[in-house]
Amino acid sequence: MTLFDFFNIIGLVAFAVSGVYKGIKKELDILGISILGFLTAFGGGILRDIIINRIPVVLTGYMDISFATGGIIAGMLFYKIFKKDISTSTTVKIFDAIGLAAFTISGAIVGINAGLNLVGVILLAVLTGTGGGMISDILTGEVPFILKEDVYATCSIAGAFILFTLTKTFGFSPESAGFFSLIFTMALRLTAIYKNWHLPRFE
Amino acid sequence: MTLFDFFNIIGLVAFAVSGVYKGIKKELDILGISILGFLTAFGGGILRDIIINRIPVVLTGYMDISFATGGIIAGMLFYKIFKKDISTSTTVKIFDAIGLAAFTISGAIVGINAGLNLVGVILLAVLTGTGGGMISDILTGEVPFILKEDVYATCSIAGAFILFTLTKTFGFSPESAGFFSLIFTMALRLTAIYKNWHLPRFE
Amino acid sequence: MTLFDFFNIIGLVAFAVSGVYKGIKKELDILGISILGFLTAFGGGILRDIIINRIPVVLTGYMDISFATGGIIAGMLFYKIFKKDISTSTTVKIFDAIGLAAFTISGAIVGINAGLNLVGVILLAVLTGTGGGMISDILTGEVPFILKEDVYATCSIAGAFILFTLTKTFGFSPESAGFFSLIFTMALRLTAIYKNWHLPRFE
Repeated sequence: MTLFDFFNIIGLVAFAVSGVYKGIKKELDILGISILGFLTAFGGGILRDIIINRIPVVLTGYMDISFATGGIIAGMLFYKIFKKDISTSTTVKIFDAIGLAAFTISGAIVGINAGLNLVGVILLAVLTGTGGGMISDILTGEVPFILKEDVYATCSIAGAFILFTLTKTFGFSPESAGFFSLIFTMALRLTAIYKNWHLPRFE
Repeated sequence: MTLFDFFNIIGLVAFAVSGVYKGIKKELDILGISILGFLTAFGGGILRDIIINRIPVVLTGYMDISFATGGIIAGMLFYKIFKKDISTSTTVKIFDAIGLAAFTISGAIVGINAGLNLVGVILLAVLTGTGGGMISDILTGEVPFILKEDVYATCSIAGAFILFTLTKTFGFSPESAGFFSLIFTMALRLTAIYKNWHLPRFE
Repeated sequence: MTLFDFFNIIGLVAFAVSGVYKGIKKELDILGISILGFLTAFGGGILRDIIINRIPVVLTGYMDISFATGGIIAGMLFYKIFKKDISTSTTVKIFDAIGLAAFTISGAIVGINAGLNLVGVILLAVLTGTGGGMISDILTGEVPFILKEDVYATCSIAGAFILFTLTKTFGFSPESAGFFSLIFTMALRLTAIYKNWHLPRFE
């Protein structure tokens, strides 16, 4: 297992947990909560694969399911026992940043390999990184956080942009450029949380 | 025509009628009402085919269109004449349960034939069975009923799960397992309506 | 460059501008505004290509990006300088009508070439013509205008219907029928704006 696979698993678990807590906040039943957990974890990868026309890989193996299921059960148990929303805790935010970075770069690499242009690679990266959260927000009637937490999608966009530049302009392989971009995306997101960064409002 | 085709047609008509009544409730014009009718009838099948990468079959033949159009016209005429919302009547609920079962199983069989894993087969089954209603709910600004009417998606999930187990574990052909799962899904949904079942709320 | 390409470019710019103004109205930051601009311009073409299973063409070349980017920058600059919402001005409405017609016909021709039935061709035409606006409306929590501004989607539907009839019944080539249908769709939309047409409400 590469470091990238490892980060990907952390992302699956963190996203599943965040889906579970969205469902708990909306007072859904166990089924609704589990659906939100799976869709938050798998939604981004499914959207990515729909756009580049392949059968969603998260829907064909069994490893991804196991980790997402683990995240869902862990999230529900934790809430049952401690009656506490851990989705806003620092630990979950760090895990979420790792997931955002891993999913972003996986989307961007798929986009580059499919021959997409800059907007295409960025769109695929952002959809993979934030699509799961977007789907669960739309289903629960919330305005997608991607339009509110501005330095979330921004990290995704910046990471994809750097990956694109490194491969297209400087000739790196998508894999080696991917490693650097992943670290960059994660560091950018963590700094944004820590420093409470915001984009300038347009006026 | 097989019994399965027959159930499928009942589903198309019932879903088209339910889309029409959603449009009437929102006081849309005739065009908006017809669009909701078509999207409720065809939406699930379109989502199913998008995920497994084939051109949506409901968009290539003419039989499905005829039945959906029939449902839309019948729904509008009925409302014009009797000024009554039949979408909550027992007859329409029974037809809707037949449609849910037929669409669920069609989605699950397509998923099994495409080599999806358990979550994939269930997702495809639920999307096919409930996707049309979900699309029309989102378009009219309602929280999708799949997150509220809990023993609706549950029937879809249970039916797909049984179909998956029968084929993968017990070696039945998708078609013969499909017949049993279809009857099961329908019976489960009708019992849930009749007994007013709910899933335990998470707390 | 054909007249059709030219109309298509006007459409990209007009749609990007309208996305920018939706973002400004919602008081989003620059990133959110740009995302809405790109999604409004590209959303329809992406949905079209997802349905007929090809990698979205707007995500592979560079010409479309340039024009959409131009529209986004121009829209933001214009607002910064004149503090005025031009998205409701007559000029932008005319450009928008040209875009609606060009995108509608491009979707309908793709649908005919993919062997879709009448509902399929109309759906693809409407999605291509109005999908970008629909996506940005859903993301900003608005009821999609396609369900409110009734003689908008109607023009798209009428144009696709005429194109379908001309090619399937009268044997015209999609390209020559396309030219006529494009002019028709545009004229219908402009007349609807000028005469303030509405569809009869259903009651």
